[in-house]
Amino acid sequence: MPDKSRILIAQGGGPTAVINQSLVGAVLAARGLPGVERVYGARHGVRGIVNEDFIDLTMETTAHLERVAATPASALGSTRDKPDLAYCKNILEVLKAHHISHFFYIGGNDSSDTVRIVVEEAKKAGHALSAVHIPKTIDNDLMGNDHTPGFPSAARFVVQAFAGANLDNAALPGVYVAVVMGRHAGFLTAAAALARTASDDGPHLVYLPERVFEIDKFLADVKAVHDRFGRCVVAVSEGIHDGSGEAIAAKLSKNVERDAHGNVQLSGTGALADLLCDEIKAKLGIKRVRGDTFGYLQRSFLGCVSDVDAREARDVGERAVQYALLQGQVGSVALRRSGDYAVEYALQPLEAVAAKTRVMGDAFINAAGNDVTPAFGDYLRPLLGSDLPQAHRLRGAAVRKVLKRG
Amino acid sequence: MPDKSRILIAQGGGPTAVINQSLVGAVLAARGLPGVERVYGARHGVRGIVNEDFIDLTMETTAHLERVAATPASALGSTRDKPDLAYCKNILEVLKAHHISHFFYIGGNDSSDTVRIVVEEAKKAGHALSAVHIPKTIDNDLMGNDHTPGFPSAARFVVQAFAGANLDNAALPGVYVAVVMGRHAGFLTAAAALARTASDDGPHLVYLPERVFEIDKFLADVKAVHDRFGRCVVAVSEGIHDGSGEAIAAKLSKNVERDAHGNVQLSGTGALADLLCDEIKAKLGIKRVRGDTFGYLQRSFLGCVSDVDAREARDVGERAVQYALLQGQVGSVALRRSGDYAVEYALQPLEAVAAKTRVMGDAFINAAGNDVTPAFGDYLRPLLGSDLPQAHRLRGAAVRKVLKRG
Repeated sequence: MPDKSRILIAQGGGPTAVINQSLVGAVLAARGLPGVERVYGARHGVRGIVNEDFIDLTMETTAHLERVAATPASALGSTRDKPDLAYCKNILEVLKAHHISHFFYIGGNDSSDTVRIVVEEAKKAGHALSAVHIPKTIDNDLMGNDHTPGFPSAARFVVQAFAGANLDNAALPGVYVAVVMGRHAGFLTAAAALARTASDDGPHLVYLPERVFEIDKFLADVKAVHDRFGRCVVAVSEGIHDGSGEAIAAKLSKNVERDAHGNVQLSGTGALADLLCDEIKAKLGIKRVRGDTFGYLQRSFLGCVSDVDAREARDVGERAVQYALLQGQVGSVALRRSGDYAVEYALQPLEAVAAKTRVMGDAFINAAGNDVTPAFGDYLRPLLGSDLPQAHRLRGAAVRKVLKRG
Repeated sequence: MPDKSRILIAQGGGPTAVINQSLVGAVLAARGLPGVERVYGARHGVRGIVNEDFIDLTMETTAHLERVAATPASALGSTRDKPDLAYCKNILEVLKAHHISHFFYIGGNDSSDTVRIVVEEAKKAGHALSAVHIPKTIDNDLMGNDHTPGFPSAARFVVQAFAGANLDNAALPGVYVAVVMGRHAGFLTAAAALARTASDDGPHLVYLPERVFEIDKFLADVKAVHDRFGRCVVAVSEGIHDGSGEAIAAKLSKNVERDAHGNVQLSGTGALADLLCDEIKAKLGIKRVRGDTFGYLQRSFLGCVSDVDAREARDVGERAVQYALLQGQVGSVALRRSGDYAVEYALQPLEAVAAKTRVMGDAFINAAGNDVTPAFGDYLRPLLGSDLPQAHRLRGAAVRKVLKRG
């Protein structure tokens, strides 16, 4: 560890409910180490780095940092920028100008790729830089991790949302379709299955991007459930696609928006839920069909956090600082499951995570491709945290009819 | 009170997070009174009455009733049926056949109208019936009430949702439009304003059905906020309409769905948010524009309850039983505010509530018609309950730039 260390931390990609736990875990760990002169935060991720838009986190009070840790959404601001080589060279230039010895980037697989390129360029330029990627993503799609911070809290939101929506649908029967985030990985949509308590509870059907979505099969599934229970609750991933890989959401939209990565914009619109509802009304003749899109609430809702997720997110931030400042290592912090349930941390090479996507394994998806397996429940349950609210329904004894007109 | 009382309870209209508190408040109060022989619940409101679809709540355990009380969405099931005179005569026929002496209907203004007609017909038919309407609605639109059970919890959801969405929008700037339930009354949409902490926090604009919605004015408002803050968070009621009263949501939809009351179906679709986002993209040229529709989550989400709301909902259920069984009265339980903040209950005539709609007074809406007044904050704040999660943002000291390329 150099005599005078200057630390830079940034947050990239979509916010999560616990991303600030990782930030504060890293900041407080770094501030507590001898030789650490300054801890800077870059505003809005890599964009803030190239613009030298830094705030001095050494000047933030500890108590306030704790309050920020408990607040959802990237407190430093985030960015969707995906730096190319030239962009990364600009980043390095700024790091050198500000004498940054350690760089931490909290983000998903794109963020880890950025760290990888910056570290490579620093090596070429002879700038001593230790850099660690701190994992976060509600998509749960990082390679080499049992799960990623941010996912358990988003999953908890999805469980609480479906548990309530199922009761609402039982009270006023019909078909209810809710669209959940997840472009390639279905983990978050799959979480909906843990909302069930009674045998007739929804979601009755779960559609994941790991399987090809066929509208006729979907309609037949909905009809079968509706015939059986008089109602049907469906969880659908925003990333469902046809056999050619084209997103179902894109097939219908006239002016499709694409992001910097060339991906079709899936979130921030209710179009997919509305399309599926229109199909059900038109083809199945069911009258009451309602669609919701959980949208940004599932990653930012204030006050829905898994305590397991919060403490793990905190840990990975602190561990990253330990790897970098106490051991001079470079890599990406990984979460590994131990027993049922404990967690261990490891540092894996950036190449193992960078720009790769993990999806749900076959063991988690049922044969019909319209639900999860019990193994997925075993996987997710310990991550949802303490004091998960429970739904309870009346178990009424029927009263004998007198008039029997019905 | 007759020697042997038979009680019937039903739930009508849209579910709320605390509607089962009122149910259980009434059931437990009735079960505790001498002379009460049976407490029945009708499944799916008035429809369950005419179909004699009853369950015997005298046979439900007290501990389980307490668990149901803490669960959102009408545990007895609900209905959108709005009974006419013939329907109400069928109801009365069933009440007589089952020797029902006391009838309680938990619902909104349509439900109180049903109670009114049934009581009238019972009087004409010489059937001794005591009936009380128990108020609930997330719309907060019942006359003669300071507020209605169900609204505070839904408002709390809206506050927590906007507090998080505002942070998400601050992290990844752009325009965020979220549509909130409320056809004629804007109370629930207005609740979004209480999500603000810092002076630049959203929602920056709030559009209510109490004011005519003009798309050009809306676009100018969004542009002004976006120019100032580089971002904009907007709360919009699903019930916004043009000068002729036509719903903005209906103006764009090809196949408009109408309910039994002839109203255009507003919920269960993301179309309004998508329309407004498309307008902003097209006319203002802002790139990142995202729309959410809170949908059914705002009334059914498991685990978002105002404790003030829960205890008041419990109280009105018990008070209804006291009015009916101990005093033989007929009417609708009303909540009145006392001081800052306590609540008192009264029984008002069914005619004062039935089929009427209360909307937000001018004192709660700003002159420009795009926000609430501080008076609305004073009104709502005590209803949101204890331990409302707080959002905290970094107050960073800026670091001096070295390269200054920007």
